[in-house]
Amino acid sequence: MPITPRTLSGFKDKLPHEAYAKSKMIKSLIESFESFGFPPIETPHLEYAEILKKQGSDEIQKEMYHFKDHGDREVALRFDLTVPLARFLAQYKNELGLPFKRYCIGNVFRGERAQRGRYREFTQCDFDILGTNSIGADCEIIQVIYASLKNLGLENFTININNRKIFNGLCSYLSLENQVVEILRIIDKIDKIGLDSVKLELSEKLKLNDKDIEFLIDFLNIKQEGCTNGIFTKLEKYKILDSKLQEGIAELEELCNLLENIIPSKNYKINLSIARGLGYYTGIIYETTLDDLQDLGSVCSGGRYDNLISNFSSDNISGVGASIGLDRLLAGLESLQLIKANNPANAIIIPLNNLKYAYKIAKNLRENGLNIEVYGEVVKPKKSLQYANNKNYKWAIILGEEEEKTNTLTLKNMLDGSQNTETIESTLSILNNCGK
Amino acid sequence: MPITPRTLSGFKDKLPHEAYAKSKMIKSLIESFESFGFPPIETPHLEYAEILKKQGSDEIQKEMYHFKDHGDREVALRFDLTVPLARFLAQYKNELGLPFKRYCIGNVFRGERAQRGRYREFTQCDFDILGTNSIGADCEIIQVIYASLKNLGLENFTININNRKIFNGLCSYLSLENQVVEILRIIDKIDKIGLDSVKLELSEKLKLNDKDIEFLIDFLNIKQEGCTNGIFTKLEKYKILDSKLQEGIAELEELCNLLENIIPSKNYKINLSIARGLGYYTGIIYETTLDDLQDLGSVCSGGRYDNLISNFSSDNISGVGASIGLDRLLAGLESLQLIKANNPANAIIIPLNNLKYAYKIAKNLRENGLNIEVYGEVVKPKKSLQYANNKNYKWAIILGEEEEKTNTLTLKNMLDGSQNTETIESTLSILNNCGK
Repeated sequence: MPITPRTLSGFKDKLPHEAYAKSKMIKSLIESFESFGFPPIETPHLEYAEILKKQGSDEIQKEMYHFKDHGDREVALRFDLTVPLARFLAQYKNELGLPFKRYCIGNVFRGERAQRGRYREFTQCDFDILGTNSIGADCEIIQVIYASLKNLGLENFTININNRKIFNGLCSYLSLENQVVEILRIIDKIDKIGLDSVKLELSEKLKLNDKDIEFLIDFLNIKQEGCTNGIFTKLEKYKILDSKLQEGIAELEELCNLLENIIPSKNYKINLSIARGLGYYTGIIYETTLDDLQDLGSVCSGGRYDNLISNFSSDNISGVGASIGLDRLLAGLESLQLIKANNPANAIIIPLNNLKYAYKIAKNLRENGLNIEVYGEVVKPKKSLQYANNKNYKWAIILGEEEEKTNTLTLKNMLDGSQNTETIESTLSILNNCGK
Repeated sequence: MPITPRTLSGFKDKLPHEAYAKSKMIKSLIESFESFGFPPIETPHLEYAEILKKQGSDEIQKEMYHFKDHGDREVALRFDLTVPLARFLAQYKNELGLPFKRYCIGNVFRGERAQRGRYREFTQCDFDILGTNSIGADCEIIQVIYASLKNLGLENFTININNRKIFNGLCSYLSLENQVVEILRIIDKIDKIGLDSVKLELSEKLKLNDKDIEFLIDFLNIKQEGCTNGIFTKLEKYKILDSKLQEGIAELEELCNLLENIIPSKNYKINLSIARGLGYYTGIIYETTLDDLQDLGSVCSGGRYDNLISNFSSDNISGVGASIGLDRLLAGLESLQLIKANNPANAIIIPLNNLKYAYKIAKNLRENGLNIEVYGEVVKPKKSLQYANNKNYKWAIILGEEEEKTNTLTLKNMLDGSQNTETIESTLSILNNCGK
């Protein structure tokens, strides 16, 4: 009795064109990370449940896949790459030395309620610098974000930068420090629900008085300035209100000074309303939006966090890092036509009578840098050309007796049906210039 | 109370230098697969347990990680990439079309008894052509193996080729068809235990008579010939004995004819004693050994199998594929010094007083194709140079006031301690030519 072939609910296969587009994107990202000297690390998908428990939000804890293994150990599938990084760093810190930089691209698992576009297994892509308080590290992570997106062909994107210390300082000045998390949660929705609804929620849900709300809103409006110098002039008057506030603003000034002329000014800005979720971050934070696809949300977010390894060690190691939302970024690249879900090969060879000659020509073209598929059987051309067509090949190379005799090949444009007799050299030149 | 940071028993972290070497190897393999037009696919790490059950050996079934998920579904972690491929093909075959080529690199899980060098999570790397009986497909997989190893810098390796039909035919001729599996299991050990022990086991364990044993051993000795033409002359007399035997020999002849001049003759040979495990394979099979590291065992094995998707569908889809043992191959490459476990960066910049200037120079060098790490904080050079030393950097670029003023940089060779004043241009030329 055959078993119905099906994917587990909430999980997804990637068909060749999807997997190939993702693989091209990841290749480019790896090159960017490595150009800054970040090496990869790998940790297992499975960990002792104890390592992953009591970390992440309550929701994530509920969604964790955990079970007993063959040795009756409580084990769990990782739900992010940050907790394994903390465990890794605590375990090898003497060997690794500090500061420690690494990137990691890997799959994580969360048994979320099934919803459109959200899967229970997805790929995370993180890069972090651990063990340094230098604003240089914050600056470098932002440079890596810039380089990663730039190398993918993106030009119009904005890295929005803020500092959690500023908002914490403001709340402290207003004696609202016990409500910081709730206030942040509401302000975080400003782009979705608008300023008026934010005011209303601050007043009705959190019972903030009008004066405090106006003070907060006035502050958040500063983001409209855009210009980096202008913004620090406006922030000057807040510096004296609270020491945390002062520290946060000073850090942003230092960061902006470091970034100037290192990455183009149009690609980053101070945005005092971004909050970057809850808990976790303690210093400079950032979110990256594609200017032409604002609705997509942030494609790369991150920030500074204190005390990463506190669950595993009494050492205090802080760090700064960011995470690229791979699926979201891929959707953005596809929508901007910066990545095409196509074939890895530039052309397909269709042998009409001599498979061996097809392999010979393919070998020659590959040695000259092209990717070449061979239809590996002599069949009626109708069948092999149909295959080429189904795979969306633009170019088919047809090899028959005549071509073999004259040492030529017939290059067929599958889009318009035209075909010409070519040499190896002219084919190389056409295929190298005309894309796939 | 801190939790002891530790990896699950039988699992392994990859430290930066290990993960980087593996990532370089995988990048090269992907380029090789894609040069033949193979696209990647991705399937989830988790599947319905039903999909994975009753497949693979009894041992693998016992080692499978399975549990109930949040929705009370019986789920399991994949133990190979072949069963998910069968499920995938059965599920999407109309969409994908045949023949279907793909590669897949991913982690699989087996709760094996812990033993040296064997882990419960490891990476598999498979490439297959499904849905064609053409010997062209067998030939192409062998070409991909050759190209993959060649592109990794290997020259001296041998793809040992055999055909299961030949041995099945021999046993059938001797009326030993019911003992084929047991005989193969013993012959498979020929390289480990030697010819005499094989004879003894065939006689004592399987009760084969001396005449049949001599006949089998005579046959296996043919492998000593080496030369492709010579071997087929020797095989001529066996052709008439059995139709399967004849078919198997004819297929090998066709394959050798296709391979001639496509891959160098020193890199493949007919080896009638390889058996490639049990069950599963039904036609041409191969194992690849590194000539300079015979003890390593096969780094890439595969063959033809019938009826891949029989558990999921009544359609009969055969295929041919191979699997690279990534960990073993990596060990081989490292041992032959063809891959070095080092830093992704060519050099590290040590800023003595101006971090911003360091970023500027780094940016310039990166734009010229170098990978450059920056020590992201102005500290005492003793500390930053120690960091560079710990990370085994050969080159450090030291930037102080003098360098900034004169638009130069100090390039320090960390191995011999020598240092010189250089320009950006001369540094580029040195670093591009001198390796890391």
